[in-house]
Amino acid sequence: MKCIDLNSDIGESFGNYYLGMDSEVLKYITSANIACGWHAGDPLVMEKTVKYSNKANVSIGAHPGFLDLMGFGRRNIAVSKEEIYTYVKYQLGAMMGFAKSNGTKVQHLKPHGAMYNMSAVDYKLARGISEAVYEIDSDIILVGLANSQLIKAGKDVGLKVANEVFADRAYNDDGTLVSRKIDGAVIKDEKVAIERVVKMIKESRVTSITGKEIEIKSDTVCVHGDNPKAVQFVKEIRERFIKENIKVCSMRYFIK
Amino acid sequence: MKCIDLNSDIGESFGNYYLGMDSEVLKYITSANIACGWHAGDPLVMEKTVKYSNKANVSIGAHPGFLDLMGFGRRNIAVSKEEIYTYVKYQLGAMMGFAKSNGTKVQHLKPHGAMYNMSAVDYKLARGISEAVYEIDSDIILVGLANSQLIKAGKDVGLKVANEVFADRAYNDDGTLVSRKIDGAVIKDEKVAIERVVKMIKESRVTSITGKEIEIKSDTVCVHGDNPKAVQFVKEIRERFIKENIKVCSMRYFIK
Amino acid sequence: MKCIDLNSDIGESFGNYYLGMDSEVLKYITSANIACGWHAGDPLVMEKTVKYSNKANVSIGAHPGFLDLMGFGRRNIAVSKEEIYTYVKYQLGAMMGFAKSNGTKVQHLKPHGAMYNMSAVDYKLARGISEAVYEIDSDIILVGLANSQLIKAGKDVGLKVANEVFADRAYNDDGTLVSRKIDGAVIKDEKVAIERVVKMIKESRVTSITGKEIEIKSDTVCVHGDNPKAVQFVKEIRERFIKENIKVCSMRYFIK
Amino acid sequence: MKCIDLNSDIGESFGNYYLGMDSEVLKYITSANIACGWHAGDPLVMEKTVKYSNKANVSIGAHPGFLDLMGFGRRNIAVSKEEIYTYVKYQLGAMMGFAKSNGTKVQHLKPHGAMYNMSAVDYKLARGISEAVYEIDSDIILVGLANSQLIKAGKDVGLKVANEVFADRAYNDDGTLVSRKIDGAVIKDEKVAIERVVKMIKESRVTSITGKEIEIKSDTVCVHGDNPKAVQFVKEIRERFIKENIKVCSMRYFIK
Repeated sequence: MKCIDLNSDIGESFGNYYLGMDSEVLKYITSANIACGWHAGDPLVMEKTVKYSNKANVSIGAHPGFLDLMGFGRRNIAVSKEEIYTYVKYQLGAMMGFAKSNGTKVQHLKPHGAMYNMSAVDYKLARGISEAVYEIDSDIILVGLANSQLIKAGKDVGLKVANEVFADRAYNDDGTLVSRKIDGAVIKDEKVAIERVVKMIKESRVTSITGKEIEIKSDTVCVHGDNPKAVQFVKEIRERFIKENIKVCSMRYFIK
Repeated sequence: MKCIDLNSDIGESFGNYYLGMDSEVLKYITSANIACGWHAGDPLVMEKTVKYSNKANVSIGAHPGFLDLMGFGRRNIAVSKEEIYTYVKYQLGAMMGFAKSNGTKVQHLKPHGAMYNMSAVDYKLARGISEAVYEIDSDIILVGLANSQLIKAGKDVGLKVANEVFADRAYNDDGTLVSRKIDGAVIKDEKVAIERVVKMIKESRVTSITGKEIEIKSDTVCVHGDNPKAVQFVKEIRERFIKENIKVCSMRYFIK
Repeated sequence: MKCIDLNSDIGESFGNYYLGMDSEVLKYITSANIACGWHAGDPLVMEKTVKYSNKANVSIGAHPGFLDLMGFGRRNIAVSKEEIYTYVKYQLGAMMGFAKSNGTKVQHLKPHGAMYNMSAVDYKLARGISEAVYEIDSDIILVGLANSQLIKAGKDVGLKVANEVFADRAYNDDGTLVSRKIDGAVIKDEKVAIERVVKMIKESRVTSITGKEIEIKSDTVCVHGDNPKAVQFVKEIRERFIKENIKVCSMRYFIK
Repeated sequence: MKCIDLNSDIGESFGNYYLGMDSEVLKYITSANIACGWHAGDPLVMEKTVKYSNKANVSIGAHPGFLDLMGFGRRNIAVSKEEIYTYVKYQLGAMMGFAKSNGTKVQHLKPHGAMYNMSAVDYKLARGISEAVYEIDSDIILVGLANSQLIKAGKDVGLKVANEVFADRAYNDDGTLVSRKIDGAVIKDEKVAIERVVKMIKESRVTSITGKEIEIKSDTVCVHGDNPKAVQFVKEIRERFIKENIKVCSMRYFIK
């Protein structure tokens, strides 16, 4: 029986600012990407989010980003390999402090926003991230866009990797995501989105934006908890997976 | 033979800004308090400072402070116990990431500046710091002002503690430091300073500002590396200790 | 006919984080205290908030706070007079840039949170704020807690001042606010709150928490726009004022 | 007689960190680019730097940069036109607060580091900066790389512009600077550098890296005050200009 992980970005509140329906989405996901205080999150939020994830039996992941709270870590910043390497060490270490003191471990690390996008296409940066994770704890699973440079770099340094797929995004022929600037980049019909992700999981294939059938490996599906509709969609995906005999469980049980 | 540790704050550079003669002072000290990126330090600096400390065979410590780079962590901020507890977790975790990935461990934690001063007199805050350290790693030694609330709280939660003394500061009758606002708070004559610290170590006593002999426990002496004169003073203290048969070694060898 | 100003803190969103029902509360208030990017607000938010305030015919004010986004500017920070003086210059100048480029002027300045509370009781800090405002533009009205040190300092340096009162807060015999830590500090019954503020405006008196009638000067009433209930209360206050023949208009029309 | 302005970046200290020999370089320059607190500088530093510049009779300029103290504003950040437009408004406004309260005016604005480089080649961003300046004060002179998109955008919105040249940098055939990554980008021989800049000023021409004579307009020369050697070079440039009958004075006297 095929296994799949459901991951979502949570712990994105900051100080007086609240964001995300964390307690709702935690009911349906298996892996939580928790912000580490640079693009979102603060120490009080990290502590609470680790506690809530533990309680919900959801595996904990570090979700490092650029030091750009004003841009929510979504803006590319021209950093060096050495810089990104130390930025990931810093944020992963901080998250491990909250995990350890709450009796749990960091299962995975997934870069956020611009750090995710840049490391998907730039091997040098991807390598910096991978080395940071490996040197701190070689047991941590690195989550990256399926087929990306980050997945390649993670494997190269000896890390376990998890290929991430998106239900609601169109793919290019080479397996990369279609840019949001292009029409059709986002699949708005939820039924179509669910069919696509089920096919990715069961057949390891997806129809690209040009109509071609391409191969894609899927270990974890990215879902959102920003609003009631998003949470409802996560619930539906999960229910559909069960009907399809796709087992939903944390990546640590099947990523070796 | 009496053992003493020499500690100094290092790794206080930030981005394009350089501070401190770290490589010089590392020759003489046994324990380094490394800034964790909140009041000083950044990830590149933390990585380098851990590497240099390792090379110099100096034990590594986390030196967390308030998120106040503009004030260098020296201004009191009215934080709650819960806040300080999570701030210490965050910064200690980050430092542990750099230590672990460089094949070493965090030996001790000493709060910086306003966090040090506030936790010396406020048991509630001291307790928050102590609990954070204990829950992350109960083996880490907590360094605080001799006789302070931080030492008390550290013991109360079950941590090993190190009493810190100052060669160049006057003491009140109750063992607290004389405020810098008061005349005579700082001992400017270096010879007198050295005599005082030798007496603190050998006799566990110091003459208070009122002339009274008071008891003081000394496990580690705070020294500075800001300028050539400060570094020279560290060298002299170390040489004098050797003459006095006071062994200089990292606190982890004698704090149980 | 007595005139009164209604002021509210707006423009407190930051980056990806939204806060406050600004467009709703702008319908009822006459003066907007706009966050200046230190404790809340960012340049995009400031630009939009100035534009919306202009459109709603609401007078613009600078609302400077401490550089503590994580604590929303609500935590006391031990700053010097020189520091607060330059912090206010910086934030007021920034707000004036947005005002000027949008064809308007900064009518008033009101410190936020901890800066408001500290300057209400500490003349030295109040003086630093007042001097900063006066030196930049002596026409700007300084808004402070009625009877506070900030009002005194503002007058001393030659500024026009506006006494702020709270409908929903209890007062001590000396005209200061009862601390929120004390039972009865907040008037929860909205009808009572409205009666109290009407009396403050019409009779320049309020019943203190001990039952004594004390004098209080009221130029502007602080109201909130955080939630639908708060906005509804602003609407009710405004309607009641009209019934009582209290004219609601921007402080610049009556503060001389 | 030809006039030339000498500009330098100053006021780059921050909190406990000191940078630059500001008081030395102020003896020789005519226009100061003062950091506005985002990539460097803080309110205390801005206040002091404006005061010192006034005293030295040096014209004051705003030197805005990206919110990236850790990278000293030298790393490209993928901002939108709207973002850069409001970031410049914010920082220019803040600087005007310090200028106005010290009895002076902001003469010019020059973007820093990555903001300078990006706006030299990206018209959209250059336009955002130019509009911000124009809307706040259309009298302010915009300083940009000679021949750059920033100069073009500044003129397009109706601003006065000053073309900046570098004594120690090689130029491409199209008048842009040779990238520092290319050999020969920096002219290390100071005598050659001085000859080049004198020729730029007197003949409006420079020899490009390929040996071609190209046209270049020079209103202001960028000089540095980071170290004693740099300051000495500024002194020498100034002395040489006087010998060559090139008058050294603030750009406001000749930019119309």
